[in-house]
Amino acid sequence: MDITSHTHHISQQFNIELDDIKTHLSEMGGLAERQVNDAIMAMIDVDVEKAEQVVRGDHKVNSMEVSIDEECVRILAKRQPAAGDLRLVIAVTKAITDLERIGDEAAKIARQAMALGRDGAAPRGYVEMRHIGEHVSRMLHDSLDAFARLDLDVALKVVQTDRTVDLEYSTAMREMITYMIEDPRSITRVLNIMWSLRALERIGDHARNIAQYVVYLVMGADVRHGSIEEIEEQIQLEQDDSGA
Amino acid sequence: MDITSHTHHISQQFNIELDDIKTHLSEMGGLAERQVNDAIMAMIDVDVEKAEQVVRGDHKVNSMEVSIDEECVRILAKRQPAAGDLRLVIAVTKAITDLERIGDEAAKIARQAMALGRDGAAPRGYVEMRHIGEHVSRMLHDSLDAFARLDLDVALKVVQTDRTVDLEYSTAMREMITYMIEDPRSITRVLNIMWSLRALERIGDHARNIAQYVVYLVMGADVRHGSIEEIEEQIQLEQDDSGA
Repeated sequence: MDITSHTHHISQQFNIELDDIKTHLSEMGGLAERQVNDAIMAMIDVDVEKAEQVVRGDHKVNSMEVSIDEECVRILAKRQPAAGDLRLVIAVTKAITDLERIGDEAAKIARQAMALGRDGAAPRGYVEMRHIGEHVSRMLHDSLDAFARLDLDVALKVVQTDRTVDLEYSTAMREMITYMIEDPRSITRVLNIMWSLRALERIGDHARNIAQYVVYLVMGADVRHGSIEEIEEQIQLEQDDSGA
Repeated sequence: MDITSHTHHISQQFNIELDDIKTHLSEMGGLAERQVNDAIMAMIDVDVEKAEQVVRGDHKVNSMEVSIDEECVRILAKRQPAAGDLRLVIAVTKAITDLERIGDEAAKIARQAMALGRDGAAPRGYVEMRHIGEHVSRMLHDSLDAFARLDLDVALKVVQTDRTVDLEYSTAMREMITYMIEDPRSITRVLNIMWSLRALERIGDHARNIAQYVVYLVMGADVRHGSIEEIEEQIQLEQDDSGA
């Protein structure tokens, strides 16, 4: 199954349009990644200026979603793509929704960083923030990479990492609650960290969604609600089919 | 512009397929609505059994998303719809994503209700929960109604209510934080309420998204990131155009 090369199309222009939406998705992904990384840094360094920059930058992610979405609708209307091409266009429309929401979560983290800049740094939670932040940032990067190269193995790795992040998130939340009980004066600031950790966990969920679209693209299977075991099983079947 | 009647299609079967996805969307919406209302009741009545029922029921919402999504892809591939029909199919694929996430948020509220069933009811927050819950539940109902009847006025009302809910949510959060500081022993239980309020606020956001797809459907305009003023302006233009 070869989805990347579109040389079978009569219209060379159609190939260019399909390549374009993939390129624009990568650009939007790159922007969302920068927003997430800057938001994490703004939080850890209590850097209000950087945080404001992230909040101001969110509209760019939003407007990229609208313009790529329009491109996809135009292709559906004009080219009436079939099979692999149709799946590609649909996967792109789904992925940009997740990227737009990742942008929203980055802006939420930045707003919490601005609050902490005003009230003073939180007494705890930065180690967790940095640790989970690194995991989630890597997941997002890998999910975009998996989409660009239609790499099933990388996509699967992202889905697996999401389970780790969920566990780390739960542990961090319990620690934050314990700390708030011990020191009620810190509640407001620890809550800023908790909202930010929750936003990170959601970014991880969106990166996992993008990775699952890759599986859908490559295999034509809908695994959004499948367990990891099912995905692994499907990948095994795929490898068996290709007669490795 | 008449999107509801599809009598211009040569294929009667195509009309049936378009009506089917609208019917299935309504059914999925009805299920999501019940999940949300049951989750709110489980929380307010500290009813663990009802909460467990909501958590168990979430997979039904998920599997409806998958099956409606497959129907939409099949229509795109087989019928290659144009103009209003294409917009309808795309709006349905977007709306089911929001409904699926509404189901997730309902399950989150139910899980918080289960935790409170274990630890004892929270000392505060039920008035806010009931109040914001009523607003959000109405928004969801109206957004689905607006979609079924392509009613711009109802869609606009949902978008406006979302601003009210956001304000009420912020006020409730500040009150919860104040209460936690006054009574640190209640922190864990008040946090259960806070996570639930946040889930309600997100359900409101998803209902607003669905209302905005209605505007997109009726007007062909992308207003997802537009301000209410812009939407009102567009509706005014639409009414002028129709030469009332």
